[in-house]
Amino acid sequence: MARDPTTRYFAGTDRDRAAFEAGIKLGSIAHQYVGTPVTHKNAAALEKAIEASTQLQPLVERVRVKIDRKRMRIRGPYGYGVLSEDLLSVEVAVRVGKARAVGVLRYVPELDYPLMYLKAVE
Amino acid sequence: MARDPTTRYFAGTDRDRAAFEAGIKLGSIAHQYVGTPVTHKNAAALEKAIEASTQLQPLVERVRVKIDRKRMRIRGPYGYGVLSEDLLSVEVAVRVGKARAVGVLRYVPELDYPLMYLKAVE
Amino acid sequence: MARDPTTRYFAGTDRDRAAFEAGIKLGSIAHQYVGTPVTHKNAAALEKAIEASTQLQPLVERVRVKIDRKRMRIRGPYGYGVLSEDLLSVEVAVRVGKARAVGVLRYVPELDYPLMYLKAVE
Amino acid sequence: MARDPTTRYFAGTDRDRAAFEAGIKLGSIAHQYVGTPVTHKNAAALEKAIEASTQLQPLVERVRVKIDRKRMRIRGPYGYGVLSEDLLSVEVAVRVGKARAVGVLRYVPELDYPLMYLKAVE
Repeated sequence: MARDPTTRYFAGTDRDRAAFEAGIKLGSIAHQYVGTPVTHKNAAALEKAIEASTQLQPLVERVRVKIDRKRMRIRGPYGYGVLSEDLLSVEVAVRVGKARAVGVLRYVPELDYPLMYLKAVE
Repeated sequence: MARDPTTRYFAGTDRDRAAFEAGIKLGSIAHQYVGTPVTHKNAAALEKAIEASTQLQPLVERVRVKIDRKRMRIRGPYGYGVLSEDLLSVEVAVRVGKARAVGVLRYVPELDYPLMYLKAVE
Repeated sequence: MARDPTTRYFAGTDRDRAAFEAGIKLGSIAHQYVGTPVTHKNAAALEKAIEASTQLQPLVERVRVKIDRKRMRIRGPYGYGVLSEDLLSVEVAVRVGKARAVGVLRYVPELDYPLMYLKAVE
Repeated sequence: MARDPTTRYFAGTDRDRAAFEAGIKLGSIAHQYVGTPVTHKNAAALEKAIEASTQLQPLVERVRVKIDRKRMRIRGPYGYGVLSEDLLSVEVAVRVGKARAVGVLRYVPELDYPLMYLKAVE
């Protein structure tokens, strides 16, 4: 991170920032794309677009986005659904110096809630 | 449109509805995707995803989305930009019975404004 | 509309444009705010913000936004829901010259679908 | 956090989670509201709505949102602008057990970039 000109704005450690940046990516994905029309036809294109745009964001090492085809709710006279957080399964790894955080967004049935959590931080 | 169960909710003619539906599609695109990170790397994937999701919406006959690579503003320490209405060039054709409307969103330099307009209605 | 510099870009009549503009406003609302966290606590502030931002858009005469408190789905460990199209009830009137169009977005139970339709056009 | 049923999904410490949650909130705000029409007329209503919806999200202790009136770019034939990340100044404090993280989003002129950073973490 020696040459990253943003470093001097940050309190805390590289590890803190890794966790913070992982959170940013998940919050961004959830709120940018929710509401997009989706069916089996476009789900793959949408997954790819979300991955590609997330990959551009600061410090992203890798990202994988899956839209749950089984839980999609296709309905109405025109036969399509919309993307909701519940349909998203995202894993994003962020690297800051020697620290890395892996964040996950997935629907957790026991909580009936699309949880964002830290799967690993080191 | 004889079997479209939504027809009875509509005032006006098929032509009115075609114009209305063209407007919906342009408004939807502008407000769903603006803010997405974008560079030359992901612009094609994003165009494709916007087209594919718009194609699912009611009564769309065809849609074409272009992101203006020349006007993209890549900036900051991480070298990316975000999608704005000014970067979008969209043309969408909607068919309702025998009526058709073609709506356009594009940045109009003389107005310094990303205008949505009816290019054709018949 | 004599002095509206956008007029020359438009095909069709004032009535066509009124229908088109009503569609834009509904599409914009649906795709801008869907995904926003919502409960009884902030629903009124959110309704007001949506109305105020829509009022700024071209040619809007009046707009009314209601979020259906009864159909909100509050859930999960933190007790909140998110705005979906199904929760929105919007009526927007647009004026173009002597033409006026009134567009509505509301969940229609018989269709199990959040329908956008022209309530009036004249 | 003893009774928070989400705790067992998390790797790392309360401090890690506090940083992560602060990031989520900033990412969410940036990508939910960017693109909203804005002028002096509705900026206060929009600030209030963003604060109120953020307050609902998990573990938020306090949040303050300012839209920079001076940097707003009002333009075009209808005289309005749209919200961009550059116009937003956000500070959000998140509490997890005894840990607290304060995240900031603000435009940093030296970087020409709307930076999200950790202002404090303890």
